[in-house]
Amino acid sequence: MLDRFGPRLQERIRALGPLCVGIDPSSALLTSWDRPDSIEGAEFFALSLLEAAIGHAAAIKPQIAYFERFGAAGYGVLERLFLEARDADVLIIADAKRGDIGSTNDGYAFAWLDERSPLCADAVTLSPYTGVDALAPFFNYTQGGKGVFILAATSNDEGRPLQTARLDGDEAVEDMVLRQVAERNGGGDELGSIGVVLGATRQRPRFDLTRVHGPFLVPGVGAQGATPDQVGRLFDRCPPNSVLVNVSRALASAGPERSGLRDAVRRWRDDLSSTL
Amino acid sequence: MLDRFGPRLQERIRALGPLCVGIDPSSALLTSWDRPDSIEGAEFFALSLLEAAIGHAAAIKPQIAYFERFGAAGYGVLERLFLEARDADVLIIADAKRGDIGSTNDGYAFAWLDERSPLCADAVTLSPYTGVDALAPFFNYTQGGKGVFILAATSNDEGRPLQTARLDGDEAVEDMVLRQVAERNGGGDELGSIGVVLGATRQRPRFDLTRVHGPFLVPGVGAQGATPDQVGRLFDRCPPNSVLVNVSRALASAGPERSGLRDAVRRWRDDLSSTL
Repeated sequence: MLDRFGPRLQERIRALGPLCVGIDPSSALLTSWDRPDSIEGAEFFALSLLEAAIGHAAAIKPQIAYFERFGAAGYGVLERLFLEARDADVLIIADAKRGDIGSTNDGYAFAWLDERSPLCADAVTLSPYTGVDALAPFFNYTQGGKGVFILAATSNDEGRPLQTARLDGDEAVEDMVLRQVAERNGGGDELGSIGVVLGATRQRPRFDLTRVHGPFLVPGVGAQGATPDQVGRLFDRCPPNSVLVNVSRALASAGPERSGLRDAVRRWRDDLSSTL
Repeated sequence: MLDRFGPRLQERIRALGPLCVGIDPSSALLTSWDRPDSIEGAEFFALSLLEAAIGHAAAIKPQIAYFERFGAAGYGVLERLFLEARDADVLIIADAKRGDIGSTNDGYAFAWLDERSPLCADAVTLSPYTGVDALAPFFNYTQGGKGVFILAATSNDEGRPLQTARLDGDEAVEDMVLRQVAERNGGGDELGSIGVVLGATRQRPRFDLTRVHGPFLVPGVGAQGATPDQVGRLFDRCPPNSVLVNVSRALASAGPERSGLRDAVRRWRDDLSSTL
């Protein structure tokens, strides 16, 4: 049963290591590559990182904001990136942080997870301010092999007051998200397809991470300051190959030469594999 | 000083009434119009509602999810809608619920609020799970005449546990959002440009709404069950012309004939004007 997203991702991590290649064509990174801050620059950047990821990373994670800033043309580049990644059999996690209420989520879920959409990815990141249960239209796609990663504890400090606010029974918001994800994933033999985003710069939440039973997407390593060792400790005793570590700026800064990018991808993969 | 978004919006509401025309080209609404669930259908739908809004509504609010589901082509329709709205001098609130951390928000803020972007609107809706302070890149654009609406209390029930979770000092998450917005808007003579989204189906929050000193974007009226009277009571004693009430499905259901749409827009505007 490798059709579901959870097991599919685990198999990729087992085969290729836990590195996720972040694709963030920001103004700053394009400038650092001596490329124009334009749609052409963004396309070159995205395809270069995809190429470096093939065969050495479990997934790519394009940050949608940096494509959206170019409007329809930016989405055209995303569509091309997704097509090429699918041709190369690379898992795509659309880092879109979408989330709304009711049938609006039908629109977003279709956009990022439906095979009929030109933006169809393998998984999408979601923001739970409107409630985890409001995200149900996305969960429906887990039956068809797709996944989601819901923000629990983000890597920035500004999010702490909200994410540690207390519900009835003294449960923190981040723990509620983890618990609701755990409940939806259930305790079957197979890893669930509903994942969470948990910043590597964070303390261990009170909710027992080994009970989440879904994949973890972990930002904050590299430029944001967390080390592979910190990640290893945070996810100690979680299911094998369930932790995917995103590195964006620290990889991109090894570009634009392709050999530099490929070396950086292998180095990060090896560093992360040794602690996870 | 009508350059800032807050006063600009107030002037529109004073002149045209508090109605915001929601533009939600969902599968269900396109089907109810006997239109194909396609990019052509969505374009017809969007431009029809824009036309009905001109001269009778303070703003339009396209729901981005329903365009994003068509990928780059959907964003192409949005670009056309925005161009035509600007030509017709109609305020655009991009209902995107964006929000991330750090420089990622630079990308989203550029996309929706920068005059150099093909998706440049007058204001954008934001989700604060990563913290209100993390949204600073958007706030920078308020100096240049743009605005934002941050989710405080959403109109759906699934969001209640998170939005009423308690911070230190027993402050609810929704009250923290309102307070932080109030602090950023300050108490000057002029209405601030940082608004909040507050569902009309909600109880009055503990934080005194008259202190927010920014505009309110109010969904939940019409198909979601709240009445104009409820809105009037909720925002009693708030600054004049600071409440913008969105109606989407209840307007669209009067289409696709243009005369029906225009009549519905006027009727809703009159109903809302009488209670706000």
